Amino acid sequence: MSPVRNAKTIFAEVPEDFPVPGKHIVYDDKDTIDLDTAVLNGGVLVKVLYLSIDPYMRGRMAAPSKKSYIPPFPLGAPMNGHGVGVVVRSEAQTIKAGDHVYGYLTHEEYSIQSAGNLRVLPSGHHISWSHFVGAVGMAGMTAYAAWKEFADAKAGETVFVSTGAGAVGSLVAQLAKMDGYKVIASAGSDEKVEFMKEIGVDVPFNYKTADMRAILEKEGPINVYWDNVGGETLEAAMDFADVGCRIISCGAISGYNTGIKPVRNWNNVFVKSLHIHGFIVSRIQGKYEDGFYKEVPAWLESGKIKIREQIVDGLDKLGDLFVAVQKGTNTGKAVVKVADE
Amino acid sequence: MSPVRNAKTIFAEVPEDFPVPGKHIVYDDKDTIDLDTAVLNGGVLVKVLYLSIDPYMRGRMAAPSKKSYIPPFPLGAPMNGHGVGVVVRSEAQTIKAGDHVYGYLTHEEYSIQSAGNLRVLPSGHHISWSHFVGAVGMAGMTAYAAWKEFADAKAGETVFVSTGAGAVGSLVAQLAKMDGYKVIASAGSDEKVEFMKEIGVDVPFNYKTADMRAILEKEGPINVYWDNVGGETLEAAMDFADVGCRIISCGAISGYNTGIKPVRNWNNVFVKSLHIHGFIVSRIQGKYEDGFYKEVPAWLESGKIKIREQIVDGLDKLGDLFVAVQKGTNTGKAVVKVADE
Repeated sequence: MSPVRNAKTIFAEVPEDFPVPGKHIVYDDKDTIDLDTAVLNGGVLVKVLYLSIDPYMRGRMAAPSKKSYIPPFPLGAPMNGHGVGVVVRSEAQTIKAGDHVYGYLTHEEYSIQSAGNLRVLPSGHHISWSHFVGAVGMAGMTAYAAWKEFADAKAGETVFVSTGAGAVGSLVAQLAKMDGYKVIASAGSDEKVEFMKEIGVDVPFNYKTADMRAILEKEGPINVYWDNVGGETLEAAMDFADVGCRIISCGAISGYNTGIKPVRNWNNVFVKSLHIHGFIVSRIQGKYEDGFYKEVPAWLESGKIKIREQIVDGLDKLGDLFVAVQKGTNTGKAVVKVADE
Repeated sequence: MSPVRNAKTIFAEVPEDFPVPGKHIVYDDKDTIDLDTAVLNGGVLVKVLYLSIDPYMRGRMAAPSKKSYIPPFPLGAPMNGHGVGVVVRSEAQTIKAGDHVYGYLTHEEYSIQSAGNLRVLPSGHHISWSHFVGAVGMAGMTAYAAWKEFADAKAGETVFVSTGAGAVGSLVAQLAKMDGYKVIASAGSDEKVEFMKEIGVDVPFNYKTADMRAILEKEGPINVYWDNVGGETLEAAMDFADVGCRIISCGAISGYNTGIKPVRNWNNVFVKSLHIHGFIVSRIQGKYEDGFYKEVPAWLESGKIKIREQIVDGLDKLGDLFVAVQKGTNTGKAVVKVADE
């Protein structure tokens, strides 16, 4: 078989603030791959179907010398992240052609991976494979595992969820409702507020137009705060936290592009006996995987949980979607559809 | 019996920054009390022996309208805090004349309290009653209960203790040594560094003259950080924390008088999966009291733990000692001796 196109998105340059498509993230369709002869070294050749675009990825757009829990993207090479694909050819014992797999995939049309990096996904369900990079992917696992690990949930309490219309926050809000919580949630547009109403948020608000502190003062005190944003929202949550409030620190997108914001009311931590848990999902997900893959696809099929996806078509759109996620202008889980099966 | 003097220290005015003795804290020896006829309303008349002066008290020098976990000192009336005294007369069933008692006492020579506010102290030990406002008082309980509750101690790990020569910090350091920790600890004078050596601190340093960040980089990473100070020390601890570090937030004296300092590196919380536990000792001590009153007096008698006290003589010295504690110029547990038995 003759070589086919293997387009990719390249991490071309370290951005100072918000990345610019075409400059920092560059689409390149010049490369090709021979699907029959490409060297696999015992691994797996995956045709990439869906790629996940997530807020944390901004942290990987760093110089190679930066130390963090996950290495920077290699400069001048394809980016990578969670994705779903179908196996074209396999030299691994545990994976066969035709399997659908999930794992870190390079941002290419075809990605060669070792079998240890991949999870074979279940078949027989009736949900889109795209969901396996969202509600049944890393974002969903983030909400599911950390809520169970850190919320110490008690029915009748009040939770405040930031980015409540987002891939993670919208699931947190729905998990909290299942556990009997009153849910306050914030997002950055009226349209996102409508979605939060649809998923059962009791007090949804647009933080760009509403008086956040007045709402939290009226609807609080807060027993659990899910923080995806940091900055002034985190400070407000601390100011209106109840004694013993658990703060689940998932991220701080308010500072990823323009510098992390200070926390100016630390005194709440001891005065209110706050318990703050930062986490990286890969460090805690092990004990939750069985329950997650059993429950969440079923919840999606039955409509017990609702999700939103924003799927763009083609790797050439990845850069724009990446920036939208950083600016919060996306609507729902950001996914790049790379190919049909 | 004729009335006797009942001198007191009054909270006379809310300070803007550091309180000034004679202005904000005023000694007043004009009042008297008749020990035979003073109205007890079913309570207890206590001759005050020792009063504890603690960092947290600065937060109580606030306007009456301030809401916090503990009310402000009443303006124009005696201050109050942990103290030890001997009972002169009792109308309560559970307490008799001659008992030594511990609890919140007004800052007077004679304090009338309800029995429910007081704990009858054990007799038969060979340690000074002053220790019952220090290592066997609130400061000791703070170290003992919160270390057990939050440190999740593992032998071989490294702890960093701020105010390592202080009433709380020096006990934390010694508890950590018992649990097999390497102990790094900071204090604000070379003389305090010497004391930290005596109690077994492995890496004691004077934060005013040493390069704190270089020390933590070399001797870390930190698995547990005990924070009494906040500000730049807290930020440094976060920067040199290991993944999964537990931060026990006991206070933030760097900001009590001049404004709470910001935390500018919050990103460490999620990147390093930090677990931060704020606490107020009264909320957690219940389950530790039996062990505490059994173990700590015995450790003091046997010399297993070492402590330092700075005892000043007379209520008229209370204001100066109060300010010294806020400025860190005291040496060891700050105690006012009000009277001999």
